[in-house]
Amino acid sequence: MLKVGIVDTTFSRVDMGMIAQEVLTRELPNVRIVRYTVPGIKDVPVAAKKLIEEEGCDGVITLAWVGKTVTDKISYGVASMSLQLVQLLTNKHVLDVTVHEDESENPDELAKIAKDRAAKHAKNLAVLLLKGGEGLQKFAGKGLRQGSSDVGMIE
Amino acid sequence: MLKVGIVDTTFSRVDMGMIAQEVLTRELPNVRIVRYTVPGIKDVPVAAKKLIEEEGCDGVITLAWVGKTVTDKISYGVASMSLQLVQLLTNKHVLDVTVHEDESENPDELAKIAKDRAAKHAKNLAVLLLKGGEGLQKFAGKGLRQGSSDVGMIE
Amino acid sequence: MLKVGIVDTTFSRVDMGMIAQEVLTRELPNVRIVRYTVPGIKDVPVAAKKLIEEEGCDGVITLAWVGKTVTDKISYGVASMSLQLVQLLTNKHVLDVTVHEDESENPDELAKIAKDRAAKHAKNLAVLLLKGGEGLQKFAGKGLRQGSSDVGMIE
Amino acid sequence: MLKVGIVDTTFSRVDMGMIAQEVLTRELPNVRIVRYTVPGIKDVPVAAKKLIEEEGCDGVITLAWVGKTVTDKISYGVASMSLQLVQLLTNKHVLDVTVHEDESENPDELAKIAKDRAAKHAKNLAVLLLKGGEGLQKFAGKGLRQGSSDVGMIE
Amino acid sequence: MLKVGIVDTTFSRVDMGMIAQEVLTRELPNVRIVRYTVPGIKDVPVAAKKLIEEEGCDGVITLAWVGKTVTDKISYGVASMSLQLVQLLTNKHVLDVTVHEDESENPDELAKIAKDRAAKHAKNLAVLLLKGGEGLQKFAGKGLRQGSSDVGMIE
Repeated sequence: MLKVGIVDTTFSRVDMGMIAQEVLTRELPNVRIVRYTVPGIKDVPVAAKKLIEEEGCDGVITLAWVGKTVTDKISYGVASMSLQLVQLLTNKHVLDVTVHEDESENPDELAKIAKDRAAKHAKNLAVLLLKGGEGLQKFAGKGLRQGSSDVGMIE
Repeated sequence: MLKVGIVDTTFSRVDMGMIAQEVLTRELPNVRIVRYTVPGIKDVPVAAKKLIEEEGCDGVITLAWVGKTVTDKISYGVASMSLQLVQLLTNKHVLDVTVHEDESENPDELAKIAKDRAAKHAKNLAVLLLKGGEGLQKFAGKGLRQGSSDVGMIE
Repeated sequence: MLKVGIVDTTFSRVDMGMIAQEVLTRELPNVRIVRYTVPGIKDVPVAAKKLIEEEGCDGVITLAWVGKTVTDKISYGVASMSLQLVQLLTNKHVLDVTVHEDESENPDELAKIAKDRAAKHAKNLAVLLLKGGEGLQKFAGKGLRQGSSDVGMIE
Repeated sequence: MLKVGIVDTTFSRVDMGMIAQEVLTRELPNVRIVRYTVPGIKDVPVAAKKLIEEEGCDGVITLAWVGKTVTDKISYGVASMSLQLVQLLTNKHVLDVTVHEDESENPDELAKIAKDRAAKHAKNLAVLLLKGGEGLQKFAGKGLRQGSSDVGMIE
Repeated sequence: MLKVGIVDTTFSRVDMGMIAQEVLTRELPNVRIVRYTVPGIKDVPVAAKKLIEEEGCDGVITLAWVGKTVTDKISYGVASMSLQLVQLLTNKHVLDVTVHEDESENPDELAKIAKDRAAKHAKNLAVLLLKGGEGLQKFAGKGLRQGSSDVGMIE
């Protein structure tokens, strides 16, 4: 039985954790899900690591919201690098999903991006956990996008 | 009994360490607090690590002040990445709180930001230490902010 | 017998993994190839590490596609740093091949860059795996380029 | 008896190592000082690590000079991150002191900044080594600066 | 007897590896030199690590060429950080020499920079290997430059 972790934040303006939970429950019927909520993006990586090492999760999806200042972008880079380290230290996938406030001036549009991205990446994680590195191979080079429509392969 | 570390700097223009200490003492009545003051942001991470490894702290809050030059921003990124490493090496939360001089031209406004942010994140740390990853779950996606008013969930 | 890993993404708009596979098969006749497809660039490093550690690959080529926003550039840096760590942790070459959407406004030109770069770096990996650090020595300082024509040595 | 390391560079335009040595000798009367001179900033971290691990230093001060190009800033970030790693790997303070050529157009002013900063941080290191994390606590939040006058607490 | 590694690239437009080899052979008469040529800057760090760990080199000089785009600058930072890690993991000096295409519009000038920088840093490495951290102490703070004339001490 698979066990999957979800990390989300109180900084986020959309409850992406709930969306990911719904998709994972649907895609992985007997999955056990453990959620971990932290204040902001810089608190996410240690939570993901604890979910893998202390809770035994087979994979994690993290859902964060990033402001638009230079400081926010630096914090994004720092948190994202740290999520890389979590993956390399555990050899588990941690899907690092972020929504950035500079993606749209319009809050409704941001919410739409957040929901689409959280749902599609939750599904991606389900495929990786069920089928490994071959599960997405038929989509290699297909220009898939999360948060918007796919752009497709060139030609 | 919980033991919590506070790292602050002589570079800071507000005594955020004192504010954090007051909040932690109120929120965690029998807490033992260990403070560690360093010159500036780049000295913070090793102090946080020593508080966890040499003093046995269960969690740490660090409170730093960041100048407005490009060099200051790089130093912020470096220190923040290093605080990520402290967390990953110890599996403990280290709340990395910073105030940036480019957040306001007005020193009084900066002081107000610093006080609000230090207090709210001290409370966040208390919740994480008392209740783990479930303690903040009811606020997931609620658009909470530290240093200013909450912006709320979209919709 | 050599075993080589290929990591590619569903974000990419060109099937660079297939091109790399063709070149590696031609250059290393008895090679065993293992492919691993992930959603995007931040999922690549752990896949490369798993191919080396869990599948026993002697070397890996990763093929990713990078958007043009500041966030994309940060993600590139993060993923690329993580691929460095994979190499340092395993002492194996991982050729980190990326195509960036700001390299051309023209999708056809991007596809051409992608194909040329994937093919040339697959060949580079074959030389490194067959001949080690001496295999490319005759081209040292020759201004070779992948994704475009060679620029040549100065003088 | 304390043993302190000093790392400086031939790239620097001021002999900051000598200034640090004078201050450390005055502040820590029986201190043993080991100096290590390297070409530039990217050679500093391994020297600091060797001073701690091979020479047994209890703490180190590094004194570097940074040019004004984008490349110089990247090199600063890289070296500074590496000095963080030295600290985390050894649990020793390494005070990472840098003077940046974009701090002033005037060489005499740069020299003045360099001297003030080297002297004040050498003293900071002495306090940390003698008194630990409590030694600087009375200055927490006081707006101390190295390289210029203190700016003071707000209010 | 000293053993020194040289890593260079096929991306470079000047054969800096040859220059370094000549200088090292002259400065360290009985030195054994091992060369390792890779495609580009991101392939350099693992080669340097292999030269130290698998070939037993006492020190390494790496010689790379960096393009002028933002992507190139990120790749520089990534490779340079990785060379820091090689040094920290081995406690050996790896002199990280790079020429950047934005240093001059003129290819002949770039070649001149590359030759001067490679030769001077090869000599620096020889001094560090022969005399340790004291060998360059008489030049501390003297404003030495590689790739151009020395700028000298201020005053």
